[in-house]
Amino acid sequence: MSARVPTAAPDTPVADLSQRLRGQRFDAADTVFVTDAEGRLLGTVGLPELIAGQGQTLAEVMSPVVGTVTPDTDQDELAALAMRCGMIAVPVLDAEGRFLGAVPPSELFRILREEHFEDLQHSAGISPHAEGPGASLNAPLSDRLRRRLPWLVFGLLASSLVTLVMVGFEEALEANVAVAFFVPALVYIAGAIGSQAVSVSVRALAEEKIEIGRLLRDEMIIGIGIGLSLGGLAAAGVQLVFGDALLSLAVGLAILCGGAVSAVVGFALPWAFDRLGADPALGSGPVCTVIQDAASLAIYFVSVSLFVL
Amino acid sequence: MSARVPTAAPDTPVADLSQRLRGQRFDAADTVFVTDAEGRLLGTVGLPELIAGQGQTLAEVMSPVVGTVTPDTDQDELAALAMRCGMIAVPVLDAEGRFLGAVPPSELFRILREEHFEDLQHSAGISPHAEGPGASLNAPLSDRLRRRLPWLVFGLLASSLVTLVMVGFEEALEANVAVAFFVPALVYIAGAIGSQAVSVSVRALAEEKIEIGRLLRDEMIIGIGIGLSLGGLAAAGVQLVFGDALLSLAVGLAILCGGAVSAVVGFALPWAFDRLGADPALGSGPVCTVIQDAASLAIYFVSVSLFVL
Repeated sequence: MSARVPTAAPDTPVADLSQRLRGQRFDAADTVFVTDAEGRLLGTVGLPELIAGQGQTLAEVMSPVVGTVTPDTDQDELAALAMRCGMIAVPVLDAEGRFLGAVPPSELFRILREEHFEDLQHSAGISPHAEGPGASLNAPLSDRLRRRLPWLVFGLLASSLVTLVMVGFEEALEANVAVAFFVPALVYIAGAIGSQAVSVSVRALAEEKIEIGRLLRDEMIIGIGIGLSLGGLAAAGVQLVFGDALLSLAVGLAILCGGAVSAVVGFALPWAFDRLGADPALGSGPVCTVIQDAASLAIYFVSVSLFVL
Repeated sequence: MSARVPTAAPDTPVADLSQRLRGQRFDAADTVFVTDAEGRLLGTVGLPELIAGQGQTLAEVMSPVVGTVTPDTDQDELAALAMRCGMIAVPVLDAEGRFLGAVPPSELFRILREEHFEDLQHSAGISPHAEGPGASLNAPLSDRLRRRLPWLVFGLLASSLVTLVMVGFEEALEANVAVAFFVPALVYIAGAIGSQAVSVSVRALAEEKIEIGRLLRDEMIIGIGIGLSLGGLAAAGVQLVFGDALLSLAVGLAILCGGAVSAVVGFALPWAFDRLGADPALGSGPVCTVIQDAASLAIYFVSVSLFVL
């Protein structure tokens, strides 16, 4: 935040303002903040309105205040507010509503950029560094390790669930070891379809109004479309290389159903996290992956049990 | 871009400028662009410098031009330039170097935000929509499907490589079917460690100067640290539940070595893509995942063959 931004009383004539400001040192001057005698923010005047205005007072040309922050507002809230309201300078008020200063465009740019990288790291399960994602590149190795381990440990524990699914179908694996060959590819495809759905969901959550019902239905249709295409391709490949029609049917069916499940789960989880007040980017973490993996493998093994055995 | 931004000749006295601009309509006025008689951009004056300057001409207070774009510059280049040079309004020049207008802060904000979501979708393998990631939410279903399928089909083909690794170790799987139980968890952990390394790499690439040697070495040390922690934990879990010391050793060793490989590959690939002029976000795609999966499983099966069989 910078306190060196222009402020003026509402009865100041527009024509006098440039004379009054002249000679002062500002960090940013694209917006004039109109305050009353107690320092309460009444409105803002953008520079273009100031230049265009003739023979009027600031009160006549000013815009209403669309959003303000306090000195302890989170950077991500600040960035979201600036975006939503199209502000290029965000006013900062104290607890009593008095104007303290503003976050200028250059600082907003820096925040947006840091938020971008923090989002990337957060969705990969790296705990944020207090001084931003850039600082973490130079943090001690032990510190960097500490910020990466917790999510991975949680993921490892969560993935025991998928191991349990495998153990549950030991019989199918013992009857025909070729059944195991396709496990990594199935897990990979479920994850890839899910990642796409997560990124679509995170984008949708940034909209003012989300038609969650329509988008979820769309995602299911797209998931089935993807599942049909990839499942068909995979089934053809398995038939061609292994010459086992029933196994190829099981692989195809697992990709078809697993793809649809992954798309829906990948889309719904970030939305659910957002509703619970958590970061939607968490939707791409272990919870999502484990559900997708377990579902895909369960569908696969049930198909295998029905067809192959 | 907006052409409605203030321009002035270099010999304009600072004191006269506000009078000259008065009454004109601008889209943004935070920067005055100083041009010569042919319309060539000579320098820029930020509003704070203009207000502070007394009795000088624009030529005396203006800053040199640090970066310009042409009307057909890509949005991502534009955003990167604005970031790198700390500009809040980016001048747009024609092929002859004549000033056409500027991209104002509000538009830069919009572009940065779109770039953020485009990055997310790109790294999930969704081809960009010409009108930005927001537009794609309302595109016809067939169009959305078309932009998601290619990367998944490529991923499916690439994952046959991992299937080949499985086929190559058929003997190990046949000798002890429990060996297959840990395949999904190993693949998951390799991917999770790799995703973290990719996000660190993408962040590092945004720095002006990258100490690629040091960061790669750090990543290897962190990868080994993560591998030791998770490998130890997993080995203890396998020993506890399955009571098979050699199998637990193989699982632990696969996570240790696979983790180190995944960290290094996840860090190096985005950097390599960047060097080749491609989007570093591609580093999180199938190429990276398939290398990590294949390496982790190969290490696992070699350990299994050495210890268990």
